[in-house]
Amino acid sequence: MSANFDSHSIGIVTPQVARFDDPLMLACGRELPNYELTYETYGELNHDNSNAVLICHALSGHHHAAGYHSEEDRKPGWWNECIGPGKPIDTNQFFVVSANNIGGCHGSTGPASINPATGKAWGPDFPSLRARDWVNSQARLADRLGIDCWAAVIGGSLGGMQAMRWSLEYPDRLKHCIVIAAAMKLSAQNLAFNELARQAIVSDPAFEDGNYVYKGAVPGQGLALARMVGHITYLSDEAMANKFGRELRSGSFEMGDEDNIEFQVQSYLRHQGSQFSGNFDANTYILMTRALDYFDLAREYQHDPVKAFSNANCSFFVASFSTDWRFAPARSREIVNALIAADRPVTYTEIEANEGHDAFLMPIPRYLEAFSAYMKRVGES
Amino acid sequence: MSANFDSHSIGIVTPQVARFDDPLMLACGRELPNYELTYETYGELNHDNSNAVLICHALSGHHHAAGYHSEEDRKPGWWNECIGPGKPIDTNQFFVVSANNIGGCHGSTGPASINPATGKAWGPDFPSLRARDWVNSQARLADRLGIDCWAAVIGGSLGGMQAMRWSLEYPDRLKHCIVIAAAMKLSAQNLAFNELARQAIVSDPAFEDGNYVYKGAVPGQGLALARMVGHITYLSDEAMANKFGRELRSGSFEMGDEDNIEFQVQSYLRHQGSQFSGNFDANTYILMTRALDYFDLAREYQHDPVKAFSNANCSFFVASFSTDWRFAPARSREIVNALIAADRPVTYTEIEANEGHDAFLMPIPRYLEAFSAYMKRVGES
Repeated sequence: MSANFDSHSIGIVTPQVARFDDPLMLACGRELPNYELTYETYGELNHDNSNAVLICHALSGHHHAAGYHSEEDRKPGWWNECIGPGKPIDTNQFFVVSANNIGGCHGSTGPASINPATGKAWGPDFPSLRARDWVNSQARLADRLGIDCWAAVIGGSLGGMQAMRWSLEYPDRLKHCIVIAAAMKLSAQNLAFNELARQAIVSDPAFEDGNYVYKGAVPGQGLALARMVGHITYLSDEAMANKFGRELRSGSFEMGDEDNIEFQVQSYLRHQGSQFSGNFDANTYILMTRALDYFDLAREYQHDPVKAFSNANCSFFVASFSTDWRFAPARSREIVNALIAADRPVTYTEIEANEGHDAFLMPIPRYLEAFSAYMKRVGES
Repeated sequence: MSANFDSHSIGIVTPQVARFDDPLMLACGRELPNYELTYETYGELNHDNSNAVLICHALSGHHHAAGYHSEEDRKPGWWNECIGPGKPIDTNQFFVVSANNIGGCHGSTGPASINPATGKAWGPDFPSLRARDWVNSQARLADRLGIDCWAAVIGGSLGGMQAMRWSLEYPDRLKHCIVIAAAMKLSAQNLAFNELARQAIVSDPAFEDGNYVYKGAVPGQGLALARMVGHITYLSDEAMANKFGRELRSGSFEMGDEDNIEFQVQSYLRHQGSQFSGNFDANTYILMTRALDYFDLAREYQHDPVKAFSNANCSFFVASFSTDWRFAPARSREIVNALIAADRPVTYTEIEANEGHDAFLMPIPRYLEAFSAYMKRVGES
């Protein structure tokens, strides 16, 4: 490891690409003729291939979960606080696999990829996806890597929902399922925020029903607004109060200075929005939020989560955060209650944290301790 | 009263217009050379002009607070549940005055009005406003109507903030101040939602920096998005769950039917958004949300609300609603605590209600009872 990175960093990592030429049947009834998964791995696979864990990313996430892409890279992967030597997902012990979901815009096959039937980008015609499609696409990656059974499938937010889906679709291919800051389905309020974000994108004249990809255009304003919606809901009221309060960026409340009054929180949101709009694909955002909307763990189990979880064979770790109002602790307790009723082993922890939904990405001591303690059990089982 | 309306309705009401030709000095340092207030009155002013109450409206409100505009009108004023014969603001007892705020778009002087200096609509050049400007403009209306002292100044949400400002700016011109579902200032999260709504409007290419007024255009998409933001924050998670849950409007989750899946909450938000965009002026929305952002009750009192309220001479009634997360009960308790510390008489009620911020508009029995009980005291004092 380079001297440029601290001793708890996995250092420089290099993304890989796995190509799958067999068609993938999708939940929507269409099939993907072929696909690529861009992924990273951290740590070493052991002799009996029993130490592999799969990371499932959230809405705007990707395969780059930990480490750095170059010596100059100053921004580590999105879950660098939790993945690395001595961290909860300890790369001295586990072989960590982290793939960009299909439909994504960070290397795996998605709306910006070429549709072999047309020779043009899929664009808005990319098939609608559900979490189970990601699970199925990743099961083939596990085959490719020689992993019959994951020591754990791990995810936060949408990634946690995907991990739960793994436990139902491939009950014998994971020993532990780790579900952080997630829910069995979105609430009406969650749906409403996603609809707001999508409407912001489709209202942008540059979106052109998703055909912007063919015109070299980017619906940047719409994406920026969508990201603002996300940021507001990822942060708690407390976190925003601590971070920004009513601090002014410049200007004052003196007479006649109205044009210059701008609150810190306003400039933060605008900055985050405009950054995101340069890095994310609008068709992907629509597709991912729809997959989130459609997710309903127990739909195919007569809407009974106890019936659903009765199909699982693994043990569960569920964690939530006190000020998360996007997927509140009550939603995690619903998962735990269903698991208990289904007689599945489950460990639950509710972490006091001011950071809202974003807490799952943060180095909150009690969170890291509880997560580490559970991962030790994963390593021993 | 017409047989078409029930016995608790005030029946048909007719808006009036008061014109003021003396310039109004504004908090921003500019002055409004003249202005009109569109207002309605309900009930009769008594012999000593002591039974008048002033209604202050919220962000997207207006002067039409109660009754109907015609025999065919099926949609009463926005606070019809609380204003009328036998209702909390009993028109058998009180003379009710309800004015559209300046800067508004429902008849009072605002961005769509003609700027006498240019002969064109003010548009984006309409002066920036603060709640105290509304208070000052309404004090002149009180003069015009012969009302030296309001029996009560009453408002919900932004209207409640305006009512508090009345108590500080004209301490001898009101006996009671009724503050419902309000706060002494916006939180960072509140500011963030307002910024999101404004960004949605200014991102609409039809907005053209507010100059749409000169081009016969309407930034309808932006206004619709802004209204969606509002609706999501006015409703509680519980209210949305009760109203929509995850019900589908049409379509199903069968294979291959993805294009038709639409949740009820999505179509509701889109409908509300598009309705609003036909009825509201974008420059007004920006101006009103900015006034809300700038509002900070104690700014000129060394940021000490106790010092601020020490200037008030009236009694206060403060009400909040359990699931209001826009202006949560904790924000009302801050008001109450400051009033107690300032030795002002205050009655506080926290109403259990599922309806979120919108509860202040709803006929919730305990709310109407508490409001009525307090208004009886107003009538007796």
